Amino acid sequence: MRLEILPVLGIGHVTEGDDLAAVIATAAPWLRDGDVLVVTSKIVSKAEGRLVDVPADGPERLVAREEVLAGETARVVASRGPTRIVQTHHGFVMASAGIDASNVDKTRLVLLPVDPDASARELRAALRDRYDLDVAVIISDTMGRPWRNGLTDVALGVAGMPAIRDHRGEVDPYGNELQLTQMAVVDELAGAGELIKGKCDQVPVAVVRGYLAATRTDDSDGARTLIRDAAQDLFSLGTAEARAAGLAEAATLAEAVGPEPADPAAVRRALDAVAEVVTPGTVFTLVDEAEVRAGLVAEVPGWPADASALVLGTAPAPLDPMDLVRFGADLHRLRVALAAEGVRSTLLPPPAGSPASAALAL
Amino acid sequence: MRLEILPVLGIGHVTEGDDLAAVIATAAPWLRDGDVLVVTSKIVSKAEGRLVDVPADGPERLVAREEVLAGETARVVASRGPTRIVQTHHGFVMASAGIDASNVDKTRLVLLPVDPDASARELRAALRDRYDLDVAVIISDTMGRPWRNGLTDVALGVAGMPAIRDHRGEVDPYGNELQLTQMAVVDELAGAGELIKGKCDQVPVAVVRGYLAATRTDDSDGARTLIRDAAQDLFSLGTAEARAAGLAEAATLAEAVGPEPADPAAVRRALDAVAEVVTPGTVFTLVDEAEVRAGLVAEVPGWPADASALVLGTAPAPLDPMDLVRFGADLHRLRVALAAEGVRSTLLPPPAGSPASAALAL
Repeated sequence: MRLEILPVLGIGHVTEGDDLAAVIATAAPWLRDGDVLVVTSKIVSKAEGRLVDVPADGPERLVAREEVLAGETARVVASRGPTRIVQTHHGFVMASAGIDASNVDKTRLVLLPVDPDASARELRAALRDRYDLDVAVIISDTMGRPWRNGLTDVALGVAGMPAIRDHRGEVDPYGNELQLTQMAVVDELAGAGELIKGKCDQVPVAVVRGYLAATRTDDSDGARTLIRDAAQDLFSLGTAEARAAGLAEAATLAEAVGPEPADPAAVRRALDAVAEVVTPGTVFTLVDEAEVRAGLVAEVPGWPADASALVLGTAPAPLDPMDLVRFGADLHRLRVALAAEGVRSTLLPPPAGSPASAALAL
Repeated sequence: MRLEILPVLGIGHVTEGDDLAAVIATAAPWLRDGDVLVVTSKIVSKAEGRLVDVPADGPERLVAREEVLAGETARVVASRGPTRIVQTHHGFVMASAGIDASNVDKTRLVLLPVDPDASARELRAALRDRYDLDVAVIISDTMGRPWRNGLTDVALGVAGMPAIRDHRGEVDPYGNELQLTQMAVVDELAGAGELIKGKCDQVPVAVVRGYLAATRTDDSDGARTLIRDAAQDLFSLGTAEARAAGLAEAATLAEAVGPEPADPAAVRRALDAVAEVVTPGTVFTLVDEAEVRAGLVAEVPGWPADASALVLGTAPAPLDPMDLVRFGADLHRLRVALAAEGVRSTLLPPPAGSPASAALAL
């Protein structure tokens, strides 16, 4: 058993309207059933006319490029200086939305194909219907990644094979069930194709032979199955952007309590977090749910019905107006520390007759 | 030109102290100069004795596993539920520090090699010195990544070839200089090796043939060049962790100004950010540097020498103690919004004779 990685030589410049199936079948009459074609997305984009005109240089070019980028962007994930990591409308997270200015006239930019899975399906269907070739097609592009320098090629689209090879449920020779073993084989195939493309000059298509059996089904869930939903991703935002979101949340913190009862351990962690930074002499006292139920808060104006606990805050005496202002700032510090622990709070006047200067309902 | 990917069959169970060079040379007498060996890190770890004993199951196993993980962790990057993404002492960012319980007895865990680049160099040297083989060696492991489902194999260590192929400075046929073209070819080679390893059962070594010329130098900067410094990484922390860091920063915000003069546009953005959430009737007025210089602040107790501007804040009249507490909380909201804009501030009493309730020096 072995795999081969072969370059498809002799593909010239591809332009809008070119018939990629004909271009590839002509350049590689040696293609066989079961081959996996790894096709650089740029020639797919060019054939599909995914090009925009921009000035060749100057500030006008930068402005035009920003506009094109905004059009390709579903959301900005991270930015630093001129770098923009964005999620595209497809769902891919890429620098500059995959917009590329290389291997194209200086007055044009190349965008990603609109639907790379559909592009892969069309090319596969054309090769099957018109050239009697049963191949899988991967549309590949070059991407960076967090934590590791250097780029690799990965799959934007696929047809004729599943994107993932799933080993879950298999058992190793030691009797351990395999976990975490969904391999993104189309990304590995795209990278394997890049190895030969990168060694040659201007080779936009590679073939991996021996990976697939010659007889395959048409089933493919496409490369879209590789897109992880942002809500499921532990890195859906850049570190600086997420930190800024935390600060913005702290600045605009809503007054609210519940619906879950406040966890006393979480409240104590919040009290500890601000202990060093509040005005010396300030006292915060956690009053627990039982005491709250015992009626202590009956005298607190505006006590929310679903609050489960109370923090009484006492500013250090003597109290002049500026002491109360500083005390209010310290209470907001505590509210933010509580929010960091997942505990919501509302600022209230103290109970009647209490020595406290103010209260937080939790 | 073509590449071949070949499996090394017949490698049995590897145990501590095994001579990997002998194991591989015996199983693959067909190895040639210029071959790239892709060696699964697990057999390197086993041969090097990087195993720890743990209970086979129960809560004791979980406790022991947590201890082992803590020992392999330089810092926690992100966590959710039982998932821990950590940076290892090598610098790799991986789930569970690459600790693996598959393909090993139920009472043992496999850790990553201590220095995978050194492991690669040793194996390469042994094959050269004892078997007259001039090969490159990649130590590979399976990793997840942000934004894309599925895992791929990448390089932990390499010897006998550079980790990165650098196209920077090359010019394409359209005259554009290539940028962003440092390809992490050892990661692509590791992934290519996984394609054949994953198709066979229990094949821990693959060979990529045809990628390197037979005559090579010994130079390699190792896979450590692939490790991006956290300070340079836009995703050095998980989104939830970075958001929590922003909240913690807001809770413990230091009183400080300068050293740069406050940007009036940034201050106005901060004022806008809190306009909707502060107590209605509260007025914040930005006093610029010229006015500050004109002596307005001479009457502010504690005015910091390097402050460049002033925000006067006036709480809505009539002022009872709770109004001042709420006003203090609103001032901290504004200080946090200023911090989000990169503007540092200090809470101060208002200038003598001013109608303001408090002031912020910027």
